[in-house]
This record gives sequence, structure tokens and C-alpha cells, in this order.
Amino acid sequence: MPTLSDKGISMPESPIRKLVPYAEEANKQGKTVYYLNIGQPDIKTPTMALDAVKIHSLDILAYSRSEGSEDYRKKIAYYYAKNDIHVTHNDIIVTTGGSEALLFAFGSIMDADDEIIIPEPFYANYNGFSIASDVKVVPVISKIENNFALPPIEEFEKLITKKTKAILICNPGNPTGYLYSKDEINKLAAIVKKHDIFLIADEVYREFVYDDITHYSILQVPGLEDHAVVIDSVSKRYSMCGARIGYLVSKNKKFIQTALKFAQARLSPPTLAQIASEAALETPDSYFEEVRSEYVKRRNLLIEELEKIDGVKVAKPNGAFYCIAELPIKNADDFARWLLEKFDHNNNTVMVAPAAGFYSTPGVGLNQIRIAYVLNEESLRVAVSVIAEALKVYKD
Amino acid sequence: MPTLSDKGISMPESPIRKLVPYAEEANKQGKTVYYLNIGQPDIKTPTMALDAVKIHSLDILAYSRSEGSEDYRKKIAYYYAKNDIHVTHNDIIVTTGGSEALLFAFGSIMDADDEIIIPEPFYANYNGFSIASDVKVVPVISKIENNFALPPIEEFEKLITKKTKAILICNPGNPTGYLYSKDEINKLAAIVKKHDIFLIADEVYREFVYDDITHYSILQVPGLEDHAVVIDSVSKRYSMCGARIGYLVSKNKKFIQTALKFAQARLSPPTLAQIASEAALETPDSYFEEVRSEYVKRRNLLIEELEKIDGVKVAKPNGAFYCIAELPIKNADDFARWLLEKFDHNNNTVMVAPAAGFYSTPGVGLNQIRIAYVLNEESLRVAVSVIAEALKVYKD
Repeated sequence: MPTLSDKGISMPESPIRKLVPYAEEANKQGKTVYYLNIGQPDIKTPTMALDAVKIHSLDILAYSRSEGSEDYRKKIAYYYAKNDIHVTHNDIIVTTGGSEALLFAFGSIMDADDEIIIPEPFYANYNGFSIASDVKVVPVISKIENNFALPPIEEFEKLITKKTKAILICNPGNPTGYLYSKDEINKLAAIVKKHDIFLIADEVYREFVYDDITHYSILQVPGLEDHAVVIDSVSKRYSMCGARIGYLVSKNKKFIQTALKFAQARLSPPTLAQIASEAALETPDSYFEEVRSEYVKRRNLLIEELEKIDGVKVAKPNGAFYCIAELPIKNADDFARWLLEKFDHNNNTVMVAPAAGFYSTPGVGLNQIRIAYVLNEESLRVAVSVIAEALKVYKD
Repeated sequence: MPTLSDKGISMPESPIRKLVPYAEEANKQGKTVYYLNIGQPDIKTPTMALDAVKIHSLDILAYSRSEGSEDYRKKIAYYYAKNDIHVTHNDIIVTTGGSEALLFAFGSIMDADDEIIIPEPFYANYNGFSIASDVKVVPVISKIENNFALPPIEEFEKLITKKTKAILICNPGNPTGYLYSKDEINKLAAIVKKHDIFLIADEVYREFVYDDITHYSILQVPGLEDHAVVIDSVSKRYSMCGARIGYLVSKNKKFIQTALKFAQARLSPPTLAQIASEAALETPDSYFEEVRSEYVKRRNLLIEELEKIDGVKVAKPNGAFYCIAELPIKNADDFARWLLEKFDHNNNTVMVAPAAGFYSTPGVGLNQIRIAYVLNEESLRVAVSVIAEALKVYKD
């Protein structure tokens, strides 16, 4: 048997997807499973996006330009301008999802054994992309006690070595829902400038910001042009996760030129999805207002109901559609599996994402879960009641 | 200015795309440019594929399974069975183009500094994927004199070290058009088994095989189940390069399990493109027969016309839609650029791909070009006459 790579072997299974077989088994047993594990919203995709591909007049489904069509990138630049972010189409590469934008950013900035500092808990697939890119993640722990705010900047400073090439944040955060303040972003900007490293911000949840707070992008920081790299995606913004369209955005021309070589090697992002995504840019503001108001209702209900449960501690998210809850148990991995395999309440059970998979430091977050509030209020109420009942009887 | 990665800096520009600005300039000057540089066929996409996305009934464009839907993979397995390749849906991962299938294969098999042996000239982006994966390409030169047949197997044997993890072939070949014989495939099978390494075959041009020869897949070699990994794609087969759908196929279960972790990290292949690609599997055999007969006509015309030119040597391809021609010049890079910048014949010029970019050994293939015969006979005839006239006056 030929050997596989060490990185292939050490590549983690997705903490979000690894319980899927147990959920499928629960379904077979006739249980209703409420899926709180994955960020696949139930929100409808804007009809103009779905309709655009229905009326295409292509007779050859050809490659697009590697960086995406100029027209589409100009429209994306206009979208950013409306959001007070000033870039041109030359600062944008259209990618196959935010995932590919991250891979291109990692490849353009880091060589094997280089280091990237990431506040944890973080989006689990950052681990996967780091391993795929032979890069070492250096975590800084953020705490549920203060809603996963930015850890003291001195904690970052301590970890910067010659091998550190970037700091990566997700803003607002998956899995924390935390929205960084302008002051926090400015602190990060100062430290990356001081050490002349990149600041990569995954801003795919930019539109999902609540409570009248304004999102502050790293592309808005004066003087950070050479250091700021933004990862973006249409997946959550227009509820079109399956399109697989994202963007890499930076005013650093050398960075964009380098990333473009990675983009050329894979030829082009998907053409049909670009047609849908370009049309999605016409989505009226009212769509986002409705979506935001729906998520605020869900979040408020979720937090309120979770806080009623004895021993449960919940972070208060201002953005995205996730929250981390600490449960009065020892091991959320076991608990999540037990919920699917052994438990039901009125024939209902839930699938949650154990939060340990969102930490890179071993042994941290073992009693935490991530909940994606992508279900309607009625379903969320049922799902939380299942967790409440389960905790009454669960022994670990 | 923060530093970029060494690999980003050393990443080659695409030899196919780097002349695009000169072609655009030639267009602006009013010249007609015949594009022989890129494998974007002018063949129409089967209508069932294009129509399938027009009648979709999605209201949420959601993620698919990371490995592609079970239904789609079962249909792909059926397609293979019709081609006498016997695999199940569990042996298949649907990827974002053949490009991503290669990246997953490289990541699953090789760590930083590992080596992969590839007969050259080879598809230029293998270089890009190797650099992105921190892997070293070890080339074995194949020769235009014998149509780029497999080099003697002893040449491979000499290059195998402890770091060698795989041999990669493209069959039929891009950029050579060479189709490996059953005997050549068996020799490769024997050597990878002897050294217990992987044999990766890029078989995306499987349907483009001429002159009544049959394609022999590495998946058909008895006893090679653990060592064989096939890269496949719908791009050329159904003239749907812009779909970005490919497959990774292997009967080695551990390999597939490992590759699936890379697939999960990027969530899913594009959903709309999977709808089109699933429908494309219904394409009648008559479509391929027509396409093959069209390419045979083009190839015959191209070779015949090229051989009429003094000092031009051409390899005779049995597959794909490329051929390599050796020209009576010193540097095809300069020649290709000169054609666009300085030359026209009756206001026509051509864009070719200099072949040096398809070699990894420096200084080899400098006087060769790759021609993609993706234009109709009339256009090909004009294009070759431009090359003939150009060679009469070109001085390097």
C-alpha cells in the first residue's frame, strides 16, 4: 500500500460534518433532527440571482477570466463603495468561494513552516487550509466571559516571530458572532504595520451585523493599504452557499499579482455561479433589512431560552448567525453524539457542532458547542427545549 | 511592505495566458487574432446540460455534499462502467474542475519537499499546483522525434528516491496529444507497484482519441487498485470548461477518505454546475462521434499544412486536441510575442503557446510551440498560413 502524506493523515475531519452519519441514523429511526450545526441558512436566495441562470443564452459554457470578468468586478467595486470601502476592480480577484480566496492568500503570503496568528475559537476550516498550505497556526485564546472580544494586543505581540507572516481574523466572527470594534481593528492595524506583516480579515458576514452597530472593515483603515487582505463571499450574504463564489480583495498590487498566478493555475471560477452572483448584486436593501430583522429575532430568542437553562453560559453575538454556549458537561463531543444516538424529547433531537474543533489549543472549549441560528423561531424554540431536557438527564 | 512567499514569487505565469495583453493590443490595432493558444473548444455544449440549469426549481442555492451528491456520483460510475472502468460512487469525489482534483491528490499523497515524476512536456499548471503544494517536480524528457511516447522506463527508475511519492501522466496528453499504449501503461503500473508509489493519471481527454485506437485507463489495470488515482473533468468532454466540475477517482479507500477531508474543508463543489454536469451525462454517443470526426479533420489539416512549411517538425497526435510543432527559430517566446506585436498577413495574426512553459527542465523546448486545434478548418488554414508567412520574414 503506497503511503499517504503526513498532512493528509493529520488533516482534521470537519467538526461540523463528522456527526452527519449519526444524524442520518437518527433520521432513519424516525427522529426529527434539528440541525444547529451548519451555517446553511434557510433564507431564500434573491430571485434575481436564481432567475439570471434561467435566462442565460450561452451555447458554450466557457472559461471566464481567471480573476473574474471585468464587468462583474466593477460591480463588486461599486458594492464596496456603497459600503464606504473604496477599491477598484483591479483590487479584486473572483474566487471559488471564500475558501479558495483563503488558499490563494495563504499561498501568496506564506511558505512551508511559516506562522499565522489567529484568535481562537476560529472557523474550523482555517485549520484545514493551514495544513493544506503547510503553514502553522499560532492561536491566541479569546474568552466566552467577554463575548470573545479581541484578546489583549500584547498577547499577539508575544507570539510574533520571524516566521509570522500574518494575523487572521473573522469579523464578524464564525463561530463566535463577535463583531470587532473600530478600536480593536485599529490595534490590529498598528501591530501588523509595526511588524510589517499582513492582516487578513474574513468579512463574509459583513451584512450580518445587528443592534445598529456599523461594521468596520480593515480596508477602511487609513494607511493599511499594503497590509490589508480581505476574504469575502456571496455564500451567506445572498444565501447562495452552493454558488461557490468569493472574492480576494487588496490594494497591495504585488499581493494581487501574486494571487493571480494561483488563480490562473486553476483557470477560472465557475461561470454559471458568476452569472447568478453578478445578478445578486442587484438585491434591494430591503432584502438585507428583512434578513437582519429575522436573525435578530432568532438570536434574541436563542439567547433568552439558553440562559434559562441551569449552568449554561452564552456569549452575546452582535453579528453573523452563530453563538457559542458553554454547557454544564465535560465533553461536548460525547454529548453531541449522545443527543443523536440515544436521546429524544417528543421524538425530537438536535445536531450541534462541538466547539473544540474550533480551537487549535488542545483541551480548550471541550464543554462548549457552536449553535448556528439558521432555523426559524419555532424550530429554534423546540431545539433549545431538547437541549434543556437532555441536560437534565445527561451524565458524562 | 510586508513580504510575499517565495513560492508566490516563483509561481510561474501561465504560458497560455501571459501573451493575452499583446493579443488584446493586436485586436485594438484592428488585426484579427486566431487563438491557437488555449484549450477552449468552439464545440457547442450539449443542450441538455445548458437547459438543465434553465429549468431548476431551487429557492435556496445550498451547499451540496462535499463529495458531490450520491445520485450524481452513481451516474458517473455508470458512465465509467460504459467505458469498461469499474468503480462505485464511493470511489469518486466530485471536485471543482480537474484542477482541484489534482490539488487534493497532491495534498493527500505528498508533504513539503516530496517529489513527483512527470514526463515532460506536461500541462503547465502541474508546475503551479506543485509549487502551491510545496512539492518538487522531477521531469523525464519525452521527445518530439517519437511523438512524445513514454520515455524508457529505466529513465523513471533512475529518478526514484525515498522522496518520490508518485508518477503523474496525462493520457492522452496535453500538450503532446500522445496516447499511451496498453504496454506503456503496464510498464508504469509495474514500476509504481515495485516502488509502492502512486500512479496519477489525468484522463480528462479520454473521449478525444482518434484513428480507432482505444484508450486504456490506469483504472483498468488488474492489481493496480491501491496505486491508481485518476483525475477527470467535464470541461473538455462536454465543452463546458466554465462549469468547473471534475472528479477524483480511486479504489484506494484510504486515499479517498483522506482526499475527502480536503474536500470537506472547502465545503462543496459548485451546485449549479453539478446540475448541468449531471444532465451532460445524458449526452448521446452521436455527439462524441461528431466531435471526434471534427477534431480528426482539423488535426489532419493542421499537420498537413504545418508539414508543408520548410523547417517545421510536427508530432503526430492520436488524442486530445493539441500538437507540438518545432519551428526553425531560436526562441518561441519572442516569436509568439512578435506575431502579435509586429506581424500580420492580410491583417491576420495568431496567438500560440510557447512550449518552453510546458517543460520543467530549463532550456528545453525553446523552439517549440503548442497549437490547440480548437478552431474550425477554415480558420486553422488561415492561422497556419500566417505562421508560414511569418517564418519567411522572422529573424531571431
